[in-house]
Amino acid sequence: MVKKFVYFFGGGKAEGNEKMKNLLGGKGANLAEMAGHPALKLPVPPGFTITTEVCTYYYENKRKYPKELLNQVKTSIIRIEKLTGKKFGDTNNPLLVSVRSGARKSMPGMMETVLNVGLTEKTIPGLIKKMNGNERFVYDAYRRLIMMYSDVVMEKAQGIEPKGDDAGIRRQLERIMDEKKKAKGVKDDTALSAGDLKELCRAFKQKIKDVLNKEFPDDADAQLWGGISAVFASWNGKRAISYRRIENIPDEWGTAVTVQTMVFGNTGEKSATGVAFTRNPGNGDNHFYGEYLINAQGEDVVAGIRTPAPINENSKGEYNKSLTTLEQAMPQAYKELNDIQLRLEKHYHDMLDIEFTIENGILYMLQCRVGKRNGLAAVKMALDMYNEKLIDTRTAVSRVTPAQLDELLHPIVDPNEEKIKKPLAKGLPAGPGGAFGMIVFTAKDAVDWFKEGKSVILVREETNPEDVEGMRAAKAVLTARGGMTSHAALVARGWGKCCIVGCADIHINLETKLMTVNNKTFKEGDWLTLNGTRGYVYEGKLPMVDQSANNQVLLSFLKLCDAVKRLGIRTNADTPDDAKKAFEFGAEGIGLFRTEHMFYGKGAEQPLFLLRKMILSKTEAERKKALDELYPFIKADIKGTLEVMQGLPVTIRLLDPPLHEFVPQNNQKRMELATSLGISFEEIEKRAENLHENNPMMGHRGVRLGVTYPEITEAQIRAILEASAELLKAGMKVNPEIMIPVVSDVNEIKDQKAIAEKIYKEVLKKYGLSKITHLLGTMIEIPRAALLANQIAESAEFFSFGTNDLTQMTFGFSRDDIGSFLPEYLKKEILPNDPFQIIDFSGVGELIQIGIERGRSVRNNLKVGICGEHGGEPESVKFCHKVNMNYVSCSPYRIPIAKLSAAQAVLEEGVKIKTSVKKGSNASRKPKKSKNKSKSKKK
Amino acid sequence: MVKKFVYFFGGGKAEGNEKMKNLLGGKGANLAEMAGHPALKLPVPPGFTITTEVCTYYYENKRKYPKELLNQVKTSIIRIEKLTGKKFGDTNNPLLVSVRSGARKSMPGMMETVLNVGLTEKTIPGLIKKMNGNERFVYDAYRRLIMMYSDVVMEKAQGIEPKGDDAGIRRQLERIMDEKKKAKGVKDDTALSAGDLKELCRAFKQKIKDVLNKEFPDDADAQLWGGISAVFASWNGKRAISYRRIENIPDEWGTAVTVQTMVFGNTGEKSATGVAFTRNPGNGDNHFYGEYLINAQGEDVVAGIRTPAPINENSKGEYNKSLTTLEQAMPQAYKELNDIQLRLEKHYHDMLDIEFTIENGILYMLQCRVGKRNGLAAVKMALDMYNEKLIDTRTAVSRVTPAQLDELLHPIVDPNEEKIKKPLAKGLPAGPGGAFGMIVFTAKDAVDWFKEGKSVILVREETNPEDVEGMRAAKAVLTARGGMTSHAALVARGWGKCCIVGCADIHINLETKLMTVNNKTFKEGDWLTLNGTRGYVYEGKLPMVDQSANNQVLLSFLKLCDAVKRLGIRTNADTPDDAKKAFEFGAEGIGLFRTEHMFYGKGAEQPLFLLRKMILSKTEAERKKALDELYPFIKADIKGTLEVMQGLPVTIRLLDPPLHEFVPQNNQKRMELATSLGISFEEIEKRAENLHENNPMMGHRGVRLGVTYPEITEAQIRAILEASAELLKAGMKVNPEIMIPVVSDVNEIKDQKAIAEKIYKEVLKKYGLSKITHLLGTMIEIPRAALLANQIAESAEFFSFGTNDLTQMTFGFSRDDIGSFLPEYLKKEILPNDPFQIIDFSGVGELIQIGIERGRSVRNNLKVGICGEHGGEPESVKFCHKVNMNYVSCSPYRIPIAKLSAAQAVLEEGVKIKTSVKKGSNASRKPKKSKNKSKSKKK
Repeated sequence: MVKKFVYFFGGGKAEGNEKMKNLLGGKGANLAEMAGHPALKLPVPPGFTITTEVCTYYYENKRKYPKELLNQVKTSIIRIEKLTGKKFGDTNNPLLVSVRSGARKSMPGMMETVLNVGLTEKTIPGLIKKMNGNERFVYDAYRRLIMMYSDVVMEKAQGIEPKGDDAGIRRQLERIMDEKKKAKGVKDDTALSAGDLKELCRAFKQKIKDVLNKEFPDDADAQLWGGISAVFASWNGKRAISYRRIENIPDEWGTAVTVQTMVFGNTGEKSATGVAFTRNPGNGDNHFYGEYLINAQGEDVVAGIRTPAPINENSKGEYNKSLTTLEQAMPQAYKELNDIQLRLEKHYHDMLDIEFTIENGILYMLQCRVGKRNGLAAVKMALDMYNEKLIDTRTAVSRVTPAQLDELLHPIVDPNEEKIKKPLAKGLPAGPGGAFGMIVFTAKDAVDWFKEGKSVILVREETNPEDVEGMRAAKAVLTARGGMTSHAALVARGWGKCCIVGCADIHINLETKLMTVNNKTFKEGDWLTLNGTRGYVYEGKLPMVDQSANNQVLLSFLKLCDAVKRLGIRTNADTPDDAKKAFEFGAEGIGLFRTEHMFYGKGAEQPLFLLRKMILSKTEAERKKALDELYPFIKADIKGTLEVMQGLPVTIRLLDPPLHEFVPQNNQKRMELATSLGISFEEIEKRAENLHENNPMMGHRGVRLGVTYPEITEAQIRAILEASAELLKAGMKVNPEIMIPVVSDVNEIKDQKAIAEKIYKEVLKKYGLSKITHLLGTMIEIPRAALLANQIAESAEFFSFGTNDLTQMTFGFSRDDIGSFLPEYLKKEILPNDPFQIIDFSGVGELIQIGIERGRSVRNNLKVGICGEHGGEPESVKFCHKVNMNYVSCSPYRIPIAKLSAAQAVLEEGVKIKTSVKKGSNASRKPKKSKNKSKSKKK
Repeated sequence: MVKKFVYFFGGGKAEGNEKMKNLLGGKGANLAEMAGHPALKLPVPPGFTITTEVCTYYYENKRKYPKELLNQVKTSIIRIEKLTGKKFGDTNNPLLVSVRSGARKSMPGMMETVLNVGLTEKTIPGLIKKMNGNERFVYDAYRRLIMMYSDVVMEKAQGIEPKGDDAGIRRQLERIMDEKKKAKGVKDDTALSAGDLKELCRAFKQKIKDVLNKEFPDDADAQLWGGISAVFASWNGKRAISYRRIENIPDEWGTAVTVQTMVFGNTGEKSATGVAFTRNPGNGDNHFYGEYLINAQGEDVVAGIRTPAPINENSKGEYNKSLTTLEQAMPQAYKELNDIQLRLEKHYHDMLDIEFTIENGILYMLQCRVGKRNGLAAVKMALDMYNEKLIDTRTAVSRVTPAQLDELLHPIVDPNEEKIKKPLAKGLPAGPGGAFGMIVFTAKDAVDWFKEGKSVILVREETNPEDVEGMRAAKAVLTARGGMTSHAALVARGWGKCCIVGCADIHINLETKLMTVNNKTFKEGDWLTLNGTRGYVYEGKLPMVDQSANNQVLLSFLKLCDAVKRLGIRTNADTPDDAKKAFEFGAEGIGLFRTEHMFYGKGAEQPLFLLRKMILSKTEAERKKALDELYPFIKADIKGTLEVMQGLPVTIRLLDPPLHEFVPQNNQKRMELATSLGISFEEIEKRAENLHENNPMMGHRGVRLGVTYPEITEAQIRAILEASAELLKAGMKVNPEIMIPVVSDVNEIKDQKAIAEKIYKEVLKKYGLSKITHLLGTMIEIPRAALLANQIAESAEFFSFGTNDLTQMTFGFSRDDIGSFLPEYLKKEILPNDPFQIIDFSGVGELIQIGIERGRSVRNNLKVGICGEHGGEPESVKFCHKVNMNYVSCSPYRIPIAKLSAAQAVLEEGVKIKTSVKKGSNASRKPKKSKNKSKSKKK
């Protein structure tokens, strides 16, 4: 049996279909589907696809083809000839074809194409006749063929690499053409006459011979095989290879080659070409949407020389509202096209991007594929199609990427503006969305300017807790140092505030209040615009697109995610405001309430003062006194949040950071503390200095504070339990979970648990209660805690993985200090990602798995969650799902992303789940494609 | 069948033997052995032992005895009566017995004893008659019985706890006696007459009745059972329980009770009592050694009221050389005793501690057990007994503890002086041995004073690399801050220098050059003495004992260890001096040569300057220039050490510490650098500041430097390979192992390996060589590296566990900062040990095991070692043996300890090994006991 290397399509039939992308490439498979599927049988110009297996063979056999190929191609050409009535290389009615690449996965612009193949001195006259004597059209096609062919087939495919951008054959031919235009005193190509073009073709051929030492093959077959070879050769072109590296596309996939009858949208006023989408890809509206040009070729639509016209009223915009629509200009063709797009969307169950050409009034479909869309459109289409019963819940959930969802959560810089602006500098995208504002260099200025009603961007070397008020007042934050988990990044992300960190090009002079960026100087008050989603800094004010109007769409979509996901989604929230926002997005509890957060920001002056007093106490007596003063604040803080959460679990983490973080640097504040403590300024200085640590991240913090100063643990646990007791007495529900941070040994928990048990008894007695439901658990953020999780789970009632610290310890990476080497690590691909952004599955991930397995080996219902920043990162959320965590916790603005990712994690496991598609909605409608899609995402 | 609860001994027979320690306790078992073993049959006063099972029964059955016990005790008393001709409770010839405790493991002083049991008003006259009318002797014995019995049996055993130290019955009786002495105007007890004592006994009894509401039982049987109960009760006394907690002795073991005929060394000039050792426990000399007192009881020898006399010439010392020896005073008894001790040592194959009493010229053996000894004696005895063929290699190795061996490695503070001095302050024992010197507070002063020939102790808050010269000049180092692995500790330990760190009581005022310690002020030049083995600081100059004369003994003993151990022992050495010392102790290579060490200390000025220049370079060009200048120093440094090691493996670690550690704080030095770099002072300041890190331990260091500044790696590897090439060309052997530090991912190694391979080719070419044998491996010191060891081992040719950093990351403990909480952790027993001293087997240990297993899973001959400070700590060395490492590497002065521990690790696994005991040495001589010993060490 002869192996099949060529798949024909055309005349209402096709040997392939859209499921055969691996063999035929995306383009070939979709052309076959459109041409041959019984439900479609669309007007596709006939052609055939040479399979990707030939590509593999070609590279495995020193660029030779399987011997069967020649015949199969010949036979296919004959089939085309039969269907079109034209003949390849014929003098009277010549057939022209395009030769295009098409890989399994789209690699836009990475591989080569040759058009107008089959046009030779011999076939030109016939074509002119067929084109009603349009000589100019034919010679224009011919010069295009020569330019493209010499470039793609005769130069690039031969591995010739001319030195310099300007040295290639194509550029040399272009220069000849430029000279011609100059000589003729014209500007546009279109102003050249048929005679001019004829001369150019001659000159081109001579140049090619001179430069490449070869004749341009003026023979149809030679052109065809040259084109095929060039496409295959382009699979291993430099650009294609590096694109595959980035996109992780295996070299073995190879490309297919599709040879297809040429049709022309540029034969006159009855011809046109266009690109359309079955729905609006910019906002998701369910309207046919597209652009076209009369008397043009496909590349003209893209090139932007002429303004394309809208295909219909719905496609009109400011810039093209006065142009004639296709519907008006060619009503018959438009009707046919509209009919086709409706059928296509029903068939594919997705929004499609289609390319069409009308040649002398006859419509041809040249391409169809799932259309790209922006975030709003993706969400809206998924929701609409779900409501239209075109897709089921799972499919709807699979249709939106986390990045697309994120677009709905923040105002963004107008993408059209960004296309034409060059960033001033780039940093790390630490807080999403866009913002513009006047720059200020101190937190105080930010607050003052904000009070004056100004929009400001706070620009700092790096931020610290004393900057928090300024950060809150600012529209956006920009820092020169720090990584994705620096203070600025953490705080900004928590608030969903636009923020760029680690923007190393920025140099701030605090004294002069000037900033230089790549030799440009900016003064206080100058405008900048930040794209925090990409990390781009722009000069001046760029317009914004506000997405908040689409909140309802977002929430409806999240309901679909909820129906699919199994992982619980909690939030990291330190204030009732945070909690409220999280509630809106459907948070199922608080996974991380940081007690220390009450000491930052507005209204925190007094608690902070008292905390500092406690920290700078030297004796237990001093400390207890300060704690007593502080106690009402702690209790009120906790009570407020427990109340807001109405019985949902609230995980309250005991004091975590090294104490020195709270020590004021400011002398006046130090003096106030000294007075309050009744000690000298020198003594305060000394005590502050004693708190200094070489590596505070691994120093006296978390449970180590609780062990050495049990009175601090006592006060906090008493506050939690008394707040709970008071709410219970008032008839409310509470569900506090006390969480011990920085644990490395079960004995630490036992030590703290003994305190908790003592306090619990006291509180029950004080309030006359028999029970206050609560849990006592631990963070797992130290490698040793993960390893000894079986011991730890004997005392801890829940685990919450603190993946920020766990990543720090597992890698030995201080997240504050990675700026000096991580960029180089990513550049050299030593690490695939910043492990503080995406969980390091192999290292940190193994510790997490070990921790969960060992923990549950002694407490099989152990509740396990994650409360690091990873809890809102899609890949990490999926990981958490895979390792059977009960929940992830993330900042309020990351909840939607977490929900989507949790739902998509379910899809990826291929498990059947409850779907809310109503009965009667035909199961066969569920496109098999969606399964492929979700599979391909697994990578 | 009746269960046996009582084991009789006496009259040349015994029902027990020394293997029955679990049942009979140490004392009972050894008495049985001495009394009954056919090879011994020593003159042991007859008696019997009630088993530990009775103790267990007693506690499990509400302090009742098994019903069989009464009869078995009665029968045994009758057997004693038959052998002695005396009768218990008899008026004519009364039998007196002692009732003593004896657990499986000695618990000195923790449990109770009652002597003279059986002495009553009724039996007194008979005893006086038997004692040739010595009324005073008998009443003295009676008053002792009453005092002891009322205290032990009537008060303590009843659980009565009088308030205050002074309130117990014993103290009250003592006060009565004191008054009596006062009234009589005498000072010593011995000055009281028989009449006085008789009166006292009457007064005692009355007092007992008044205070305890009970009569003193003037009945032999009642006294006997009271005594037995009191011993059992004392097993659960407070002191005993807390001792068991500390020594890890299980509560279930219980104590035995030995009831034995009383013999008296205080019946007159023909009586005596003494303690002796079969060899000198202070220096190991093979001479019978001991002390005795004529006409005295056992407790008198210990009490120190009279100076005991030497038993023979060999036992004479300065303080007792004029006293009459036992050999002279009682030649017959001495001869008999000497004969017994020779037989005992042959029988036990170990040095024994024996107690004897001579009653009216007749020798009795009262106790025998393996004798305690100091370090020198332990090593010398092991060696001597091995040479005498008394023990085999394995046994010899098992006879010395690492702590004993350590005593031989350093001068130590005279233990006798330490007994009577109170430490001024305590710190962490960071560098072993003892030293005295005048205190100075700066490294410069240390150097200057040293040059003037003075002995100095450098006292600092904490040390840094700039102090190294001063540390070298000082006899000892004392710091107020820092832990066992602080800079001071690491450096001092490496040099075997006396050092105490973290001595928090010390407060230094650098300006006034004064130091206060617990309110005492010391000025520069004042003398201190440090015991670095214990961490004690003493005021003034304490005498030292120098052990260096015993070097030969040490080295011979190490040869025995070598014959047993399998683990390789390498050294951490940064200089030829270190290497030489290590050689002397038999190091098998260098496991850690720190390239950065060449920048510290003597002669390092220029390399350090150039290194700083390199560090403060901003561009690659600047850096390369500085590196070129530095290169010759690096090469010379490496070449020197490779040369010294003559082909033994030398593991050279590439630059490890964060660069900022080398940045000078000193402005003049900064200015010099600025000049040399041709930049401004401000620029230097800025660059230095840029190197600041929040957590440098997890920052830009190790391989991260190598990845970001490949030229640094290049220079180092080139230096290693060129140095090797030059030595090879000169006909010498080299064996360099290039070690990459701080690795967390295999890609880091691949990156560096590519550099190494490039340089290797260049060097081969330059020197015209075809090969330079070398390895390229990695430290495993980051948890992730251990987890991903299988990937890493694909590129790394060896692993060296850096357990200092691994411990830091696994625990999240910064070793510089643990001072604020680790003491509390140890106190609260949250952790059993400082994990920087003893490997944390469960956490860090698991990572090590994972690392080894996974590493060898892909490279089964992977060489694995350890080069953290743990490599010289006994328990950690044993761990390394267990997990099948190839070698440990430690500082030169720890090599002996490491060797011993490695050998003992072999003994602990119970595997047969090659022993160098010559043929013909009777196998049966190998005491089974030694097996028990080594087993008991496993705990």
